[in-house]
Amino acid sequence: MKIYSIAKSRRIRSTPYTSRIEKQGVTAYTSYNHMLLPAAFGSLEESYHHLKENVQVWDVAGERQVEISGKDSAKLVQLMTCRDLSKSKVGRCYYCPIIDDNAGLINDPVILKLDEQRWWVSIADSDVILFAKGLAIGNKFDVKIFEPDVNIIAVQGPKSFKLMEKIFGKKITEMKFFGFDYFEFTGAKHLIAKSGWSKQGGYEIYVESTKSGLALYDKLFEVGKEFDVKPGCPNLIERIESGLLSYGNDIDNNDNPLECGLDKYVNLDTNVNFLGKEKLKEVKKNGIIKKLMGVIIDAKEINVSKSIDLINEKNLKIGELRSGVYSPHFKKVIGIAMFNKPHFVISQTFKISINDSIFEGKVCDLPFI
Amino acid sequence: MKIYSIAKSRRIRSTPYTSRIEKQGVTAYTSYNHMLLPAAFGSLEESYHHLKENVQVWDVAGERQVEISGKDSAKLVQLMTCRDLSKSKVGRCYYCPIIDDNAGLINDPVILKLDEQRWWVSIADSDVILFAKGLAIGNKFDVKIFEPDVNIIAVQGPKSFKLMEKIFGKKITEMKFFGFDYFEFTGAKHLIAKSGWSKQGGYEIYVESTKSGLALYDKLFEVGKEFDVKPGCPNLIERIESGLLSYGNDIDNNDNPLECGLDKYVNLDTNVNFLGKEKLKEVKKNGIIKKLMGVIIDAKEINVSKSIDLINEKNLKIGELRSGVYSPHFKKVIGIAMFNKPHFVISQTFKISINDSIFEGKVCDLPFI
Repeated sequence: MKIYSIAKSRRIRSTPYTSRIEKQGVTAYTSYNHMLLPAAFGSLEESYHHLKENVQVWDVAGERQVEISGKDSAKLVQLMTCRDLSKSKVGRCYYCPIIDDNAGLINDPVILKLDEQRWWVSIADSDVILFAKGLAIGNKFDVKIFEPDVNIIAVQGPKSFKLMEKIFGKKITEMKFFGFDYFEFTGAKHLIAKSGWSKQGGYEIYVESTKSGLALYDKLFEVGKEFDVKPGCPNLIERIESGLLSYGNDIDNNDNPLECGLDKYVNLDTNVNFLGKEKLKEVKKNGIIKKLMGVIIDAKEINVSKSIDLINEKNLKIGELRSGVYSPHFKKVIGIAMFNKPHFVISQTFKISINDSIFEGKVCDLPFI
Repeated sequence: MKIYSIAKSRRIRSTPYTSRIEKQGVTAYTSYNHMLLPAAFGSLEESYHHLKENVQVWDVAGERQVEISGKDSAKLVQLMTCRDLSKSKVGRCYYCPIIDDNAGLINDPVILKLDEQRWWVSIADSDVILFAKGLAIGNKFDVKIFEPDVNIIAVQGPKSFKLMEKIFGKKITEMKFFGFDYFEFTGAKHLIAKSGWSKQGGYEIYVESTKSGLALYDKLFEVGKEFDVKPGCPNLIERIESGLLSYGNDIDNNDNPLECGLDKYVNLDTNVNFLGKEKLKEVKKNGIIKKLMGVIIDAKEINVSKSIDLINEKNLKIGELRSGVYSPHFKKVIGIAMFNKPHFVISQTFKISINDSIFEGKVCDLPFI
């Protein structure tokens, strides 16, 4: 695979940690919410094994926040998501599909309830702030919407708990998954959630004080030596094995949450008012016509830079691969694909062309592990 | 400057022309509207000289369209821009700052009036579609909003007129600047505008039929041989010399159009209704507190990947450089910078640190050439 460089400019913003990760050996970037997101520190596979056994510190500042506050903030946040937030609690994170009036996915953020009238929408890669502003203006909602200067450091991997305990004390290990609380470091208060874009466990530190955040970044590496800490980033192999969906890759505005297996975040039987509710009721009644599934392919290598057609024995397209990677665990290529009805069934077989050769694959459930 | 690779994935979409430009020697990409935009074909300076003397074909599919149609489409489009479109004509392009209710810039697209009730908003790098959808939903406008599958090929440079004439005939040379019309190629109809993101002259072909567009892409290179046609992309040197602003680089949501020298696109004295109008009246009355200006710096090299502070003789920050490049024409670094009041005056001097050395610079007007 030929390598192309990324052209840096102010439009793809550096993070407070960029100069550090460049000294630490970052080799590839992607752009995420108009910001640099590290995509590799050398070998993807070595980083995968390291993440599953040790602890990594990730610059995920590209996971931007949309802060929504004010009298109508709860109404606006609820309007944007099909998940019922009427019983949501301060101090908790909620994974929430954001959809438009046609039930098409716009983003799949984690929403943090900071206060009864203050929320952070911690977004995947699309400008949710513009959707929120448009809705607020059009509906004349009494809200304030802006992007605060929050730059997340993720600490991920099985040894993240021990590492974070050494810095913040026992209390941090007692948090529940998707809970958050405030912890002090060098005099600054940091919101820390038990969350992160891996299934290996860990935390996300929502850094508001850049100065303290940089000191904390360095401290994590200093204290982390005994746990073999390394810099890292969301890992393609780990996230596909774990079935973590990526907005823009696996799901997009042409998909609705029921097609993406997000049924448990779709609450149609409550009284809350959200966009696309009638459309989703209709979809639920008539049944979905496509569905996101896992696939296992008898191949040793793949690079997915766009959708790849999946073909049946009659040479008809039955689906498309949207993400894929060689899995050292399965010793095969695994991936996430959208299949048309009626082909979204376990063990359905298909053919796929990779580098001009044809390979066989079959449909399976998500997550893989 | 160390080189980092770009991690490709479906989230940063390939264009119909990506496989072609990769065979033609693209070396760097940026991401633009969640799509790959070529950023270099080898030397920036060689490409700059070539563009100013010959003709280039650019894959600028990342310049996506937001199509807005329906009974309330004109009302919605007008609501989003401070430029008075009440007398706009079908068949014309309009450069329009899009602003929010606080007059902060959201994008600076060219808007094409396709029909009285059908518009294409040809966007810079932010999800205008989400703003438009939010406003339409909130205001209960009768409109249809979607991103059509349009992939622009730009033909730029002084020889673009001759090249395009050879393919489309005399008529194409008679179009006025920012006019558009429809031209046939291999049986498909292509909207072609006399426009483009350089000041060297040329066209933008809004390709709707991918098949015909690919044939046209190849035809441009075949016919273009006699004009020394080459593949290219928006050129940092040329666009800064020409004073073409880049949303996200030179201007962003923290700036209003009056601060960015876009006064002629701000129509406060008409009856049209747009967001941020009252705010802009207030700004106009009180005067702007910062202003975008050109700068010339006594240096031979610069890489601007984030804002760089500009300091006066008292060591106070008086502005920030947002884009910059070495100009072979001026034999100095030139750039675009935002200066605080009262420092946005011609010949104001400043100091800037580049690669740990201090250089002198001074303020000038835009454009440079």
